[in-house]
Amino acid sequence: MSTENSFVNQFNAAGELTHLLTLEGLLKEQIVHILDTAQQFVSVTDPAREVKKVPLLRGKSVFNLFFENSTRTRTTFEIAAKRLSADVINLDISTSSTAKGESLIDTIDNLIAMQADIFVVRHSVSRAPIEIANHVPPYVHVINAGDGSHQHPTQGLLDMYTMRHFKQDFTKLKVAIVGDIVHSRVAKSNIHALTALGCTDIRVIGPESLLPNDLDMLGVKVFHSMEEGLRGVDVVMTLRIQKERMEAGKVPEGAAFFAQFGLTPERLALAKPDAIVMHPGPMNRGVEIDSKVADGAQSVILKQVTFGIAVRMAVMSIVAGN
Amino acid sequence: MSTENSFVNQFNAAGELTHLLTLEGLLKEQIVHILDTAQQFVSVTDPAREVKKVPLLRGKSVFNLFFENSTRTRTTFEIAAKRLSADVINLDISTSSTAKGESLIDTIDNLIAMQADIFVVRHSVSRAPIEIANHVPPYVHVINAGDGSHQHPTQGLLDMYTMRHFKQDFTKLKVAIVGDIVHSRVAKSNIHALTALGCTDIRVIGPESLLPNDLDMLGVKVFHSMEEGLRGVDVVMTLRIQKERMEAGKVPEGAAFFAQFGLTPERLALAKPDAIVMHPGPMNRGVEIDSKVADGAQSVILKQVTFGIAVRMAVMSIVAGN
Amino acid sequence: MSTENSFVNQFNAAGELTHLLTLEGLLKEQIVHILDTAQQFVSVTDPAREVKKVPLLRGKSVFNLFFENSTRTRTTFEIAAKRLSADVINLDISTSSTAKGESLIDTIDNLIAMQADIFVVRHSVSRAPIEIANHVPPYVHVINAGDGSHQHPTQGLLDMYTMRHFKQDFTKLKVAIVGDIVHSRVAKSNIHALTALGCTDIRVIGPESLLPNDLDMLGVKVFHSMEEGLRGVDVVMTLRIQKERMEAGKVPEGAAFFAQFGLTPERLALAKPDAIVMHPGPMNRGVEIDSKVADGAQSVILKQVTFGIAVRMAVMSIVAGN
Repeated sequence: MSTENSFVNQFNAAGELTHLLTLEGLLKEQIVHILDTAQQFVSVTDPAREVKKVPLLRGKSVFNLFFENSTRTRTTFEIAAKRLSADVINLDISTSSTAKGESLIDTIDNLIAMQADIFVVRHSVSRAPIEIANHVPPYVHVINAGDGSHQHPTQGLLDMYTMRHFKQDFTKLKVAIVGDIVHSRVAKSNIHALTALGCTDIRVIGPESLLPNDLDMLGVKVFHSMEEGLRGVDVVMTLRIQKERMEAGKVPEGAAFFAQFGLTPERLALAKPDAIVMHPGPMNRGVEIDSKVADGAQSVILKQVTFGIAVRMAVMSIVAGN
Repeated sequence: MSTENSFVNQFNAAGELTHLLTLEGLLKEQIVHILDTAQQFVSVTDPAREVKKVPLLRGKSVFNLFFENSTRTRTTFEIAAKRLSADVINLDISTSSTAKGESLIDTIDNLIAMQADIFVVRHSVSRAPIEIANHVPPYVHVINAGDGSHQHPTQGLLDMYTMRHFKQDFTKLKVAIVGDIVHSRVAKSNIHALTALGCTDIRVIGPESLLPNDLDMLGVKVFHSMEEGLRGVDVVMTLRIQKERMEAGKVPEGAAFFAQFGLTPERLALAKPDAIVMHPGPMNRGVEIDSKVADGAQSVILKQVTFGIAVRMAVMSIVAGN
Repeated sequence: MSTENSFVNQFNAAGELTHLLTLEGLLKEQIVHILDTAQQFVSVTDPAREVKKVPLLRGKSVFNLFFENSTRTRTTFEIAAKRLSADVINLDISTSSTAKGESLIDTIDNLIAMQADIFVVRHSVSRAPIEIANHVPPYVHVINAGDGSHQHPTQGLLDMYTMRHFKQDFTKLKVAIVGDIVHSRVAKSNIHALTALGCTDIRVIGPESLLPNDLDMLGVKVFHSMEEGLRGVDVVMTLRIQKERMEAGKVPEGAAFFAQFGLTPERLALAKPDAIVMHPGPMNRGVEIDSKVADGAQSVILKQVTFGIAVRMAVMSIVAGN
C-alpha cells in the first residue's frame, strides 16, 4: 500500500475497501471486483424486471451530505440507495446547523450519533471527504461524490464499467479525454483507473490553459489539436467546460472553443469506426459536443448514467459489507 | 380516437391509458374505470385501516418533476406513490442541472436512463408534459400534475369521483363552476370530464374578464350573475382567483369580487337544498367563498382531498400496469 | 389533571398520551413509561444490529411540519419515523400553500384529509402545536418539536433518558443548567420533567439578563456565578446562546460570556468527579463551553443525540398506539 493510500485510508486492516475516496492507489483486482458486483446490479435495475430492489441495505441509513449542489449526482445515489432498500436522508447543508456556527466535524459527529451507516459526500473543498473518513468510526463508511477539482471516484468507475461493457480489454484501448482537464475531477479519476486496469494509451486533448502541469507524471500523452489526438482512438470522452470553476474573464468563449475542440461528426470520423463517445454530463451542446454526435449511434452517454446506478449500488454494498 | 388524442398520444397500441395528460378525449368507460379503481383505494387509505399500503408499485421509481412549485399537489402524489410502495424522488428543478445549461429533454433522458418508471410533471408552460410524454419510451409513464393554464387531469378526476360519490348519476346533474375560469386548468379538465360522463347542464358563472371565449364551443351555459346561475344546481364548484396568473393592475379587488361572485349562504340557498360545495383549494376565504359555506354542512372540500389520494393511486397503478 | 393539562389536552379520555405538546403536567409514571419504551429502541438502533428497523408504524404517514428551520431536529424525527417503518413527508412550509394565502388551520385540515397520522411540528410561535392539537381528530397525533421559547418536550425527555442512563436515581441528583435560560425551551422542558421525576436540587446559573422572572415559582435555585452554582453537582447542562432570539445590541459578546459562564475544565472540577456534561447542541465552542470539556471524558453530549432517536421512536409509537 502506498503512502498516499495510507494517508487516504480507504481500506480496513484486512485490506478491504471500507470507504471510496479516490481511485488513486486502487489495485486492478479491487476495481474489477467493483465492476463485477455492479454487473449483477445492472440486471436488478433492468426496466423489464418486476421489482428493481434488493434488500442488501435494509435498515441501513444513507446520508446524502451535499455541501455543493448537484441534483444529478445526488439523485443517482438516492436511487441506488433506495434500490438497496436503505433509508435515505438528504441533508441540505446550507440550511443546516452549520449556519448556527457548528463545525463540519461537530455536524458529522452528530450524524454518527444518529447511527448513520454511509455518508455520501459532495464538497467544494478538495479532500473534505477524506477528512471526514479519517474521523469516523470503523462501522461508518464514506463515499466521495466529488470533492473540489480533486476526485469523483464513482464517476470514474462508471466510466470504466462503460468502457469494459463496450470494449472489454483495457490493455488494447486508446482513450482520448478532451477539453477542460484542469478543472475536472472526472479526468483525474479516469486516468488513475485506466492506468490501474492496464490501459497504456491515454491521451488528453485541450488548450494549454485547460491542461494541468503534472500530466507527464501520470504517463498520459498531451495534444493541442483534435485532428492529431483523436486519430485511431477507441474511446472519446468529452468533458464539460466548468465555467463555475474558472475565474471571470478566463472562460473560453463557447463558439471559439467549439471551433477548435468541439466533437463534431467530422472529427469523430478520425477515431476508429466503432469508437464510443462518452460525456459525464450535463452537456453543453454546441460547446464541447455537436448534437449530431451527442445523439448519434456511437454515443453511449445515457448508458453511462444507467451503469452509474449499478456502480453506486455496488460501491455502497461493498463498503457496507466490509 | 380524435386527432387531438393521437397528437396527445396518451394511449398505447391496445388503446389503454399509458400516460395521463389531459381529460380531453377520454371516453366515459375510461373515466369510469379510473373512478372504480380509485374506489378500491379509498378503503385502503381509511384511517381505521391498520396498514394503509399496498405493494402494487414496489420497486418502481416515481419522479416528482415540479418545474412550478406546488407543495399541496406534490404532497398528494408523494403520499399516493408511497402508499403504492413506490420509491419517490422529489426533484427541485430550479436547482438542478438545467441551471448548468441542460435542456429539458436532456434532463428527461438522464432520468429515463436512471430507470424512472413514472414522471409526475408540473410545469408553468402549457403542454410541457405532452412534450415529455411524446419523448419517453413505452415503459415510462407521464402524469400531468398541472401545465400552465391548460389541464390538471387528476384534479378533474377527483372532482368527478367526488360528484359520483355524493350524486351518483351524472346525466341528471346540474353543475355550476364559479369564478376565475380563464386561468383555471381545473375548470377545463372538469368540463371535458363532465361532458364525457353525460352531464348536460354545465354552467360557468363569472365576470366577462375571467371567462374564456370558447365556452360556447364546449356546450356550457354562461352566466354573469350568481343569482341566475346557481338556481337549482346540484353542485357548486368555486375556483381560486389565480392572482399569480394575472397581469398587474388586472387583479380583481377581493371585496368587490366577493360582493358579486362570493359564495355566501344566501346564494347557496338558491341551489338545491342538498347541493354540494366544492373547491380545488387553496381557498381565499372572503374572496371566492364565505367561511360559513367553506366550513358548512354542504361543503365536501376536504373529501375532495381525501378522494384525490385514491384517484392518484388509481392513475399511477393503471398507467404503470399498461 | 391540572387546568393547564386540560387546556393543553394531550391525553385521551382514558388518560393516555395522544399528543406530546409539553412536559408540564406529565406525571412521573408517564415519563417513566416513555423512557422504558425508549430503552427497547436503543437496542434496535445499535450500529451492530443487522436491521435497525421495526414495523410498528408501517403504513402510517408522518408529516414533518417545520415552520421554523431546524435540520438537526427534523433529521432525528425523520430517522426515528423511518426506523419505525413509517412513510415520512417533509413539508417546507415557507414554500407551501400558505404562500398562496391559506391559513395554518386550512393547511392542517388538508393534511388531515390526506390521512396524516402524526404531525411533528416546529414553529416559531409558542403554543402553535397546541393550537393544532386542539383542532385534529382523535386518530391524528401531534408532537411538539419546539415552539418559540415555550417547550421542546422530546429534548427534555432525551435529557431525562440520558441522566437516568448515567445516574439512575433522580431523587438524589443535583442538576445545574447554565447560560441562556430565558430563551430556552429546553430549560423549561427539563425543569418540568426533573421536578416530576423527584429531583429536588435544580439550579440555574446565568447573568440576570438571561434568566426569566418566574424561576422561584418553579422551585429552582438561582446562581449568578459558576463557582457557586456548580459546586457538588452531578449533572452540568450548558445551553446554546440563542443569538437569533435576542434583540440586536443585546447579544452578549462571546469572549465576555465565556470568561464568566463558559464551562472550562477548572469550573467542571467544582462539580462531582463523576459529573456528566450535557448540551442540547449545536454548540458554540469557546462561548458556552470549552472544547476540552465538550470532547472530554465527562461529556455525554453525543450520547444525548443517540438516545434522542430512541426517545422519538418511543413517543411516536406511544401516541400512535393510543
